[in-house]
Amino acid sequence: MTAAADTAPLRIDRAAFAADIEALAAITEPDRPWTRRSFSPRFLEGRAFLARRFEAAGLDVRIDTAGNLIGRWASEHPAAPVLMTGSHSDTVPDGGRFDGPAGVLAGLAAIRALRAAGYLPRHTLELVDFLAEEPSEWGVSCVGSRGMVGALGPRELAMTGPGGETLAAAIDRVGGSAARLAEACRSDVAGYVELHIEQGPVLERERIPIGIVSAIVGIGRVRVRFEGAAGHAGTVPMAGRQDAGLALARFALDVRDAARAVTGEGHFNATIGVMRIEPGGANVIPGAAEALVDIRAEQDAAMARFIEALPAIAGRAAASENCRVRSVDTVSRTTSAHCDAALQAGIAAAAASLGLASRPLASGAGHDAAFMARIAPSAMLFVPSKDGKSHCPEEWTDPDALADGADTLLNTLLRRDGAAPAR
Amino acid sequence: MTAAADTAPLRIDRAAFAADIEALAAITEPDRPWTRRSFSPRFLEGRAFLARRFEAAGLDVRIDTAGNLIGRWASEHPAAPVLMTGSHSDTVPDGGRFDGPAGVLAGLAAIRALRAAGYLPRHTLELVDFLAEEPSEWGVSCVGSRGMVGALGPRELAMTGPGGETLAAAIDRVGGSAARLAEACRSDVAGYVELHIEQGPVLERERIPIGIVSAIVGIGRVRVRFEGAAGHAGTVPMAGRQDAGLALARFALDVRDAARAVTGEGHFNATIGVMRIEPGGANVIPGAAEALVDIRAEQDAAMARFIEALPAIAGRAAASENCRVRSVDTVSRTTSAHCDAALQAGIAAAAASLGLASRPLASGAGHDAAFMARIAPSAMLFVPSKDGKSHCPEEWTDPDALADGADTLLNTLLRRDGAAPAR
Repeated sequence: MTAAADTAPLRIDRAAFAADIEALAAITEPDRPWTRRSFSPRFLEGRAFLARRFEAAGLDVRIDTAGNLIGRWASEHPAAPVLMTGSHSDTVPDGGRFDGPAGVLAGLAAIRALRAAGYLPRHTLELVDFLAEEPSEWGVSCVGSRGMVGALGPRELAMTGPGGETLAAAIDRVGGSAARLAEACRSDVAGYVELHIEQGPVLERERIPIGIVSAIVGIGRVRVRFEGAAGHAGTVPMAGRQDAGLALARFALDVRDAARAVTGEGHFNATIGVMRIEPGGANVIPGAAEALVDIRAEQDAAMARFIEALPAIAGRAAASENCRVRSVDTVSRTTSAHCDAALQAGIAAAAASLGLASRPLASGAGHDAAFMARIAPSAMLFVPSKDGKSHCPEEWTDPDALADGADTLLNTLLRRDGAAPAR
Repeated sequence: MTAAADTAPLRIDRAAFAADIEALAAITEPDRPWTRRSFSPRFLEGRAFLARRFEAAGLDVRIDTAGNLIGRWASEHPAAPVLMTGSHSDTVPDGGRFDGPAGVLAGLAAIRALRAAGYLPRHTLELVDFLAEEPSEWGVSCVGSRGMVGALGPRELAMTGPGGETLAAAIDRVGGSAARLAEACRSDVAGYVELHIEQGPVLERERIPIGIVSAIVGIGRVRVRFEGAAGHAGTVPMAGRQDAGLALARFALDVRDAARAVTGEGHFNATIGVMRIEPGGANVIPGAAEALVDIRAEQDAAMARFIEALPAIAGRAAASENCRVRSVDTVSRTTSAHCDAALQAGIAAAAASLGLASRPLASGAGHDAAFMARIAPSAMLFVPSKDGKSHCPEEWTDPDALADGADTLLNTLLRRDGAAPAR
């Protein structure tokens, strides 16, 4: 058996896939399901499980110098380029059983199905558990995929986590080698495809089983600080106050209105998830207030215009409450990553061959695929999240919906492997 | 020399008064000026200083069972009722040198001036340093004045502070006796007059040296909790969100507008000094939010109407953001206290005799006088606060303005003592 684009689609072993999902989820901090934080003993326990499962599927297992766990199925073609799939096994605190693990285990299920079918790949297939995709105590996310694309520099490596351990030391501790990080940088990847849960409500609402990611948004974070005049809540008359809490309130509503007015430029969100008022006493008029604005944009130009407009939005809110804007600081900003058109078409064709509806949508969350897109044609497929929930214990995707996604991943890899002859 | 209403006014010793203010201020936590928290070793140090100064002025010094430090100048008339003055020597953290101490030391300066003039009072004069007027770690304020008027019950006495110490044990520790608290309740007080800094900007703005307090506001605290739906800031579309932070923002602005609309009912303020949004992650849409509304009303009816209106105000704010009001709880509420008309007139006359302008104004802050008004005709006089600031290190009143206030207090006591013959 070789390429399969025009034959009946292959299918994964649903029971084995579901058992893997359950077994990895069970490796959790017992008092805080479902938690397996990167670099923790629990994380290493999860990786040991994964390594055993990778080996049982016939893969050669190693950890690259960036700390990524990689299972490799070498093509019989000499110097074949790599077709890669994967995701991450670390979680946020309380973070759910699917965000990350689903993609790693779907890749594993796909490889097992190819093995079981006696398939001989033209590409070398690699299955990757990227290190520390989620924000960690070290303050940087997507550690492993950054490492693989050469985006992990001295600044990141020097960041410190619990006990003052540097990220470099933590990478070494989990089996990588920060000193030889360049060896993790890849130039042999011909394509990367990742399955992930949507983490949003769109697919569930529209009853569509497969989402084809068109782009992964850029993420900007802007901190805005207002200053007014603190005072006694009882003795300072209402007229003439400089209440920084009210300036913040007005700003929050105005930011939302401004974000809603961004239309026709794809996915665009702005959210204020962090607000602080100072000094925070029940009987004290707020003298200062801060908001952290999170901006997600499919189009980098939309992000740029919004960030440029924030000082004026803040200024109007402050002025209306006799307050001042103390600072508007862009604390971080990434550009959006666009998914490979051919791979997107491959996902659509694979879904159709399985009788599964699909639709394009942007990813509002960051992913390892956004870094992989810097070095290889990359794409992602989403499966529905119940109630759109993620990063919480209630995160859930039905086993059959997950398996539909894994089937689609399998046939996408199969089509991609067959479509482009290996060198 | 006896009563002095129609003779030239007496005056305090300004230099001695200023020296007392400085000496008591210097008794502060060294790393956090100006701090002398109730029940702390520093507070007891301040009280030892005061006791020595009271004794040096010829007063009999004792601590009543509610923990109030009292200096007594017994009238030669048998069974003479008590004319009382005082304030409190404890401070908020970083709290300033005048909020509290100014009233105690102005009373001391007045008594010294009467002594120096050879005055023989018809009333027994008492100078009180009330225990723990400021909010403390025990969660209840005006401990001493509550005790003196019978408003310190088992619920308050059982409240716990640092190390789990009950308020009852803390009162015992500073020289009171919670078991014999009834002995602190007074029925012999014919009048109470307290000098205090304004803690607001009105007198300074209008360049008026003496404020005559017409009423001390009632204080209400209402906690309002909103619930929406937490979600991923990147993946949940702007349309259809249930952002509890935005419900809170709208509520804050609406509460302010509603408070401004309360007119013609005297002093009325509403302030939100505490806001919290949950979970508080940069990339998480707020799923819940809380505000603590502080309401100050000279008229109890205005307070009642405003508190009754809050659920509807919150409901509209929540509905406009697809959120729900989870709860509206009145966590505390006191009624306003009206100052005695004859004592107010006495303050006005005393000020006029000194060539000092005065105006009536309500006190937006709570004071021991609000409790004393339950058992005796009571009044307060205010001196200006620079920039209206209080409860902060910058709290300031010019020494001459303070001394003008102490002169006014002195002549108010003198008039009151002479106007009503002792029994």
